[in-house]
Amino acid sequence: MAHRLGANQYGKAECRVVRIVRDTPRHEIRDLNVSTSLRGDFADAHITGDQAAVLPTDTQKNTAFAYAKLHGVTSAEDYALALGSRLLEACPAADAAQVRVEEYGWDRIGDHSFVRRGGAVRTAVVTVGHDATHVLSGISDLVLLNSTDSEFKGFLEDEFTTLPETDDRVLATSLVARWRHTDADGGGIDWNASHEAVTATLLRTFAGTYSRALQEMLYAMGSAVLDAQPGLAEIRFSAPNVHHHLVDFSGFDVDGLSNDGEVFVAADRPYGLIEAQVTRDGAAAADEAWLAVPGFC
Amino acid sequence: MAHRLGANQYGKAECRVVRIVRDTPRHEIRDLNVSTSLRGDFADAHITGDQAAVLPTDTQKNTAFAYAKLHGVTSAEDYALALGSRLLEACPAADAAQVRVEEYGWDRIGDHSFVRRGGAVRTAVVTVGHDATHVLSGISDLVLLNSTDSEFKGFLEDEFTTLPETDDRVLATSLVARWRHTDADGGGIDWNASHEAVTATLLRTFAGTYSRALQEMLYAMGSAVLDAQPGLAEIRFSAPNVHHHLVDFSGFDVDGLSNDGEVFVAADRPYGLIEAQVTRDGAAAADEAWLAVPGFC
Amino acid sequence: MAHRLGANQYGKAECRVVRIVRDTPRHEIRDLNVSTSLRGDFADAHITGDQAAVLPTDTQKNTAFAYAKLHGVTSAEDYALALGSRLLEACPAADAAQVRVEEYGWDRIGDHSFVRRGGAVRTAVVTVGHDATHVLSGISDLVLLNSTDSEFKGFLEDEFTTLPETDDRVLATSLVARWRHTDADGGGIDWNASHEAVTATLLRTFAGTYSRALQEMLYAMGSAVLDAQPGLAEIRFSAPNVHHHLVDFSGFDVDGLSNDGEVFVAADRPYGLIEAQVTRDGAAAADEAWLAVPGFC
Amino acid sequence: MAHRLGANQYGKAECRVVRIVRDTPRHEIRDLNVSTSLRGDFADAHITGDQAAVLPTDTQKNTAFAYAKLHGVTSAEDYALALGSRLLEACPAADAAQVRVEEYGWDRIGDHSFVRRGGAVRTAVVTVGHDATHVLSGISDLVLLNSTDSEFKGFLEDEFTTLPETDDRVLATSLVARWRHTDADGGGIDWNASHEAVTATLLRTFAGTYSRALQEMLYAMGSAVLDAQPGLAEIRFSAPNVHHHLVDFSGFDVDGLSNDGEVFVAADRPYGLIEAQVTRDGAAAADEAWLAVPGFC
Repeated sequence: MAHRLGANQYGKAECRVVRIVRDTPRHEIRDLNVSTSLRGDFADAHITGDQAAVLPTDTQKNTAFAYAKLHGVTSAEDYALALGSRLLEACPAADAAQVRVEEYGWDRIGDHSFVRRGGAVRTAVVTVGHDATHVLSGISDLVLLNSTDSEFKGFLEDEFTTLPETDDRVLATSLVARWRHTDADGGGIDWNASHEAVTATLLRTFAGTYSRALQEMLYAMGSAVLDAQPGLAEIRFSAPNVHHHLVDFSGFDVDGLSNDGEVFVAADRPYGLIEAQVTRDGAAAADEAWLAVPGFC
Repeated sequence: MAHRLGANQYGKAECRVVRIVRDTPRHEIRDLNVSTSLRGDFADAHITGDQAAVLPTDTQKNTAFAYAKLHGVTSAEDYALALGSRLLEACPAADAAQVRVEEYGWDRIGDHSFVRRGGAVRTAVVTVGHDATHVLSGISDLVLLNSTDSEFKGFLEDEFTTLPETDDRVLATSLVARWRHTDADGGGIDWNASHEAVTATLLRTFAGTYSRALQEMLYAMGSAVLDAQPGLAEIRFSAPNVHHHLVDFSGFDVDGLSNDGEVFVAADRPYGLIEAQVTRDGAAAADEAWLAVPGFC
Repeated sequence: MAHRLGANQYGKAECRVVRIVRDTPRHEIRDLNVSTSLRGDFADAHITGDQAAVLPTDTQKNTAFAYAKLHGVTSAEDYALALGSRLLEACPAADAAQVRVEEYGWDRIGDHSFVRRGGAVRTAVVTVGHDATHVLSGISDLVLLNSTDSEFKGFLEDEFTTLPETDDRVLATSLVARWRHTDADGGGIDWNASHEAVTATLLRTFAGTYSRALQEMLYAMGSAVLDAQPGLAEIRFSAPNVHHHLVDFSGFDVDGLSNDGEVFVAADRPYGLIEAQVTRDGAAAADEAWLAVPGFC
Repeated sequence: MAHRLGANQYGKAECRVVRIVRDTPRHEIRDLNVSTSLRGDFADAHITGDQAAVLPTDTQKNTAFAYAKLHGVTSAEDYALALGSRLLEACPAADAAQVRVEEYGWDRIGDHSFVRRGGAVRTAVVTVGHDATHVLSGISDLVLLNSTDSEFKGFLEDEFTTLPETDDRVLATSLVARWRHTDADGGGIDWNASHEAVTATLLRTFAGTYSRALQEMLYAMGSAVLDAQPGLAEIRFSAPNVHHHLVDFSGFDVDGLSNDGEVFVAADRPYGLIEAQVTRDGAAAADEAWLAVPGFC
């Protein structure tokens, strides 16, 4: 029986690159988690053990740190584009380099002092090939909650259905969203302004939408983003439905104690998981932009 | 500007199903983490908010628990096949149901007493469609280490290369592997015996292979599994290179203190990440079997 | 050989209590993780199995949820005081009830819409006894970084010392701090204002202090808090030294590439861990306030 | 207002020390997570910033790695005793050194090949002072489950009680246990044999005990250990009650479907948390042995 090597990639994951800009006494900080992958003709490394074509993951790591200085980090996307281009060039056997970045925000508390912001993480996935380059901007761990204006009813029932219909529930999610820029090389894009604008649209739409299901909310958010950002081809969501169960006070022997949507238990598991894509009509697909991106979106 | 709904799926993630079989005083336990997803024509739920076609994730959860009794859990795969078929049938708008299972092992310490085994987790991903069914068996968190018989040299160098070549290093990984059964419905397969056999081949190959790179080790492991298991079409790996750096004793002022491959620091981040597929020649591809499976493999 | 039961306590840990105030269309949210413990004479439960004196952890949980409505949550401390008093009263065998609260912040994005803030977590540990009540306010996961004005030199050396002295390094920590209020019952304390004030002092002191060691920074922060808050008896810190190692560019073959405190790798493990207490002269000690509080402080 | 420095300690946490013994082709592996702390007169470091008395945490780390070779790792306790003695000697300002070790088990799959065992973690906390030395051996993440022979009834009720009494439930915990050796220096103790014996007693007692509460189970386990091991002075437990809720099938419209203790949902949060100590009558207390040990026990 003969076998063959299928798709493969390799790289260095989770380089924790912290870049301080100290050109003036008022320092700046960019705090990144950088992962790189190379794809291409690396069959020898797998089959015969010959490493001649392999740019080691250690070198990829070194390059990631060096480029934080040589190129700088004005944005996750810009840095990833430069790093991806360099890695592709440095490794002739590769036909694509992917750079994945998570960026953690910090708030200033002094000229050279910062407190980590927490909350949502900014993400970028850049895939640089010989023929095309793709940029996915994104956000993860964006935890959103509406305390009303959410219903869930009129659903399909079968013999295992016990969920009551509801006109008023808490809707909460920890959103992962990624959106693809049409102009893959991103020539003139202000990445920071673009990211800020998309995030603002996501928040505004979440806050302003009455939802009959998390699905409807995601579609509304995706549509709003594509409406507001003509430079985007598509947006993808992975959205756990973080259940907030109304606590049942009916068994307590306390006069007048009721729970009209006021006290909930936030559940860990299980959780609903809704995943969806919204695509601009006529936008060209780009499967390679999404290759090996964790999750559905 | 018009938009359209792209690919989407929804379901309940991480139902922690514990099944006790207590037909005799000597109980059995199966401990599962079950996630389900439905795919198909759910556009109304997203676009108009109409939930008529939606089998709620709560009902999917109920069904997952009920099937642990109604169908039973002789293996993760068998249970997932039954549950997936049920969900597909119960939801006419769906054209596929995916069930993902993680199983945690327990060791017996008494007739009705158990201690959780820890270590590797058994996995199964079953996708039931109207036309085809696919079964991926797998394992995750399989942490392997060779304390010698691993080298890394002869690699491509550039101006950022600082890694010295080595003839003798620790090779360690926390393996995720998934393998696809050719006979998708798995008619006569003994899932437990099959899983045990593949795992044994993975361990034996890891222990018996001199490796010039983690890539070569993965290809050897994949080939050995396909050789030994004619019923498998392909196997996919995601393998972090868990770096064990030799600690440098040269700076210590202690006579005779040396470190000949004896003391290592196990690093957290960054880590190499090698992902590869090994495919049987002539096996039909089955992209839908891998849709939305986290990670590269 | 005879044995005896030593210290013991029991309760319900990590009740995820979410309280929505919806008296007006502009809702409020308080998001808590609540743990309770009872201490006292529960020897029968341990030794003979008689549960007559035991208020079940399930009832403690129910009470925690009910009190979010019955008493309300104007602050973590106020809620914990009420809940602790109730639990002590409900369980005659108990001589103390401890309530531990973590509170997660949310930012408003609409009248009934919120985004989770992330970052530091507010904490409270309240111990209610028959004779005395103690309140520890606190903060955890407060990640702080100074990009200069930190040195480390003049330390003790031995034959295993390899660390070079430095005049300029990044100082970063993920601070846990807890401070004890002198007036244990907290009669007239505005808990929210007090917490805000202490946090502001911690940030301002961190940003404004040149430090010769993390130890000195902690003492400065603790002293500043006690100076500013006469109502506090003591403050305790647990502070990992989150190492930011300067990346060595000297091995790269790139003209002019240097690293003057600009590019760092943020390390995971190991990390320094500095723990210290600062106490107001003359303040009475209160060991029972700290009993079973995780960590050193 | 004057303040003073209270209790304090400092050290390096979570050194991931991997020791390979390769004296013969059949290698051995010991895989440790080592944390060290020094206590004593370090007021200058806190108050004036003078580091002259401080043995840096970096040096403590170096020593931890060097001692894996210089002294070797025949057991966590023996290694920690040697390392603690060295650190105390190397730092004249210290009056005690504490070494905390977690050890991860590996199973052999070849002469130089291993698979990580998972499951329970072996622990040791050694405190070396000028006058006394204390050794706590222990185990954590020991996940145990009895599928019957557990009841919970006859408990105290109040107006918030809704829990029904039960004669038959699943009892599960993820145990942390630590036991203190009377002979603190542990002259002639075979640490590995002792640890194995205590663990065996814990498992055997858990499997063989009918329990009316987790409290009773802990006391039974503690008593059995002290009975079997005359060299131990006390044992302490921290035991979450990992709730396995019986799934309610009564709402399903399926003829004959019942749930007689067969299908459970394993809950994450909240969980009961039972903490207790069992002490040998007449054994001398040793508070300093437990100082800064995380958790109640």
